Amino acid sequence: MKYLVGETSEGTAVFAVNGENAVNLTALDATVGSDLMGLIAKPELADSLSDKIAAAHTVPVSSITPALPVVAPGTIICMGLNYTDHIKEGGYDIPEYPTLFMRGKNSIMAAGQPMVRPACSEKLDYEAELMLIVGKRGRHISEEDALDYVFGYTVFNDGSLRDYQRKTVQWTPGKNFDDTGAIGPFTVTPDELPEGASGLKIESRVGDEILQSSNTANMIWGVRQVIATISEYTTLEPGDLIALGTPPGVGHAKKPNPRWLKPGETVEVEIEGIGICASPIIDEKDSKSKVAAA
Amino acid sequence: MKYLVGETSEGTAVFAVNGENAVNLTALDATVGSDLMGLIAKPELADSLSDKIAAAHTVPVSSITPALPVVAPGTIICMGLNYTDHIKEGGYDIPEYPTLFMRGKNSIMAAGQPMVRPACSEKLDYEAELMLIVGKRGRHISEEDALDYVFGYTVFNDGSLRDYQRKTVQWTPGKNFDDTGAIGPFTVTPDELPEGASGLKIESRVGDEILQSSNTANMIWGVRQVIATISEYTTLEPGDLIALGTPPGVGHAKKPNPRWLKPGETVEVEIEGIGICASPIIDEKDSKSKVAAA
Repeated sequence: MKYLVGETSEGTAVFAVNGENAVNLTALDATVGSDLMGLIAKPELADSLSDKIAAAHTVPVSSITPALPVVAPGTIICMGLNYTDHIKEGGYDIPEYPTLFMRGKNSIMAAGQPMVRPACSEKLDYEAELMLIVGKRGRHISEEDALDYVFGYTVFNDGSLRDYQRKTVQWTPGKNFDDTGAIGPFTVTPDELPEGASGLKIESRVGDEILQSSNTANMIWGVRQVIATISEYTTLEPGDLIALGTPPGVGHAKKPNPRWLKPGETVEVEIEGIGICASPIIDEKDSKSKVAAA
Repeated sequence: MKYLVGETSEGTAVFAVNGENAVNLTALDATVGSDLMGLIAKPELADSLSDKIAAAHTVPVSSITPALPVVAPGTIICMGLNYTDHIKEGGYDIPEYPTLFMRGKNSIMAAGQPMVRPACSEKLDYEAELMLIVGKRGRHISEEDALDYVFGYTVFNDGSLRDYQRKTVQWTPGKNFDDTGAIGPFTVTPDELPEGASGLKIESRVGDEILQSSNTANMIWGVRQVIATISEYTTLEPGDLIALGTPPGVGHAKKPNPRWLKPGETVEVEIEGIGICASPIIDEKDSKSKVAAA
């Protein structure tokens, strides 16, 4: 199944997508709720709706404004160095263990929403990434069992402020500016993709300019290994998000000059079989800040 | 005010502490709720209860089992290198910007609860730290205004698995083992402490063995600077937790041999004017894992 969480005039709902059209699952069954947590909690719900979906009224996908697939993920864990050529372009050695950091909820936003270049830095960079949504609770998950813990896969743009990322040995500030990590819009269940979402073309671009182009088969640590590694130290929870690192071609490593994202541009990340996550870049002064919105 | 969130036979409640005795504020007014978020959301509530508190029945503090001051903090941000002598003992250069990392919710537990030494590592280390609880939402908070955003101060033991902390350049795994970060039990409001909780003795020990002994006046970045720095990149939210780094004396730097915490020991962190956060160390095989408890 391909899901889209989004808003229409009827509110925020979960949609089942079929090509250019979508069925409002929340309207079919209110227990689906307004993000994917309902379906994550009740895996049988999707099957029970299949007859209703076939007979249901559809709306164009283009009429839906994407929202976050999981509104309040408990934890967002990201991997930093997972494609060999990206590690080399950043000047790092190839690590023997996944390089893991965390993002906070205020750093993420839905596909289609503005990515905000902060007033304090012009070094806004893109990172095309596969992201998985955890489907059930677990610790000490073996590589063998790991794929059972994946609810689905989505697209992530791990927007980063490179000067703040490298102010110290810890990357936290540069990876946590408000409204810099774009997620979505589509979440595809594992049965519709190759095992571990491996072998999918992954690309980022601005207009016709291809910035990154690789394949998820090039990841050093695949989905099985990452879930086993993280769950050695922490209990994974339903709705947790795990990003799997970016291929080469990031802006700060472009020659002869870095290629920073600029207000007015729209950056797109596309993963084959999942979809396109587009983010218009705006200046902080033109953004509705989270504080003002509160 | 000194608060204690904890459990008695009547359930989990917020208590106002006066010496050895405490008043159940949740019993006086149910809108206080079962952690500090109620008082954080309604600062006027504490004042409105003061007459009732004076006349209320008290219970011994010793009869209350501490719970987390904030059950579900949105974000837990920690500082790594904030006391000069601790930076030197770890072999780091003194940074020009705070070294910030994040912990997830599953890594923390209340004072008094077991700190779990995982099966995969014996390198469990203590870190005595001041922790602040954010009282209101804000971004781009100036150093001048920063103290207005502090609800209160508590005690933190930033339990760390040193081998996992240094597996890569990012410290995330070693700082995020389940049940390794102890918080509490008391939260003291800023009016009862020196400005920015500076000038307080901070100590960690096992029994009579003093492991760390310093003063919060020795922090390189004080509370004002840390709030201003973090809020430059992210919106702080009520209930967010910020830990302010540890003084010298951590176990991995002890000479001639590292001093790891062992099952059967109880590690205590004490901050003058706030209280003692005690954590009995247990082996993972003897712990009730979060998965089993679910």
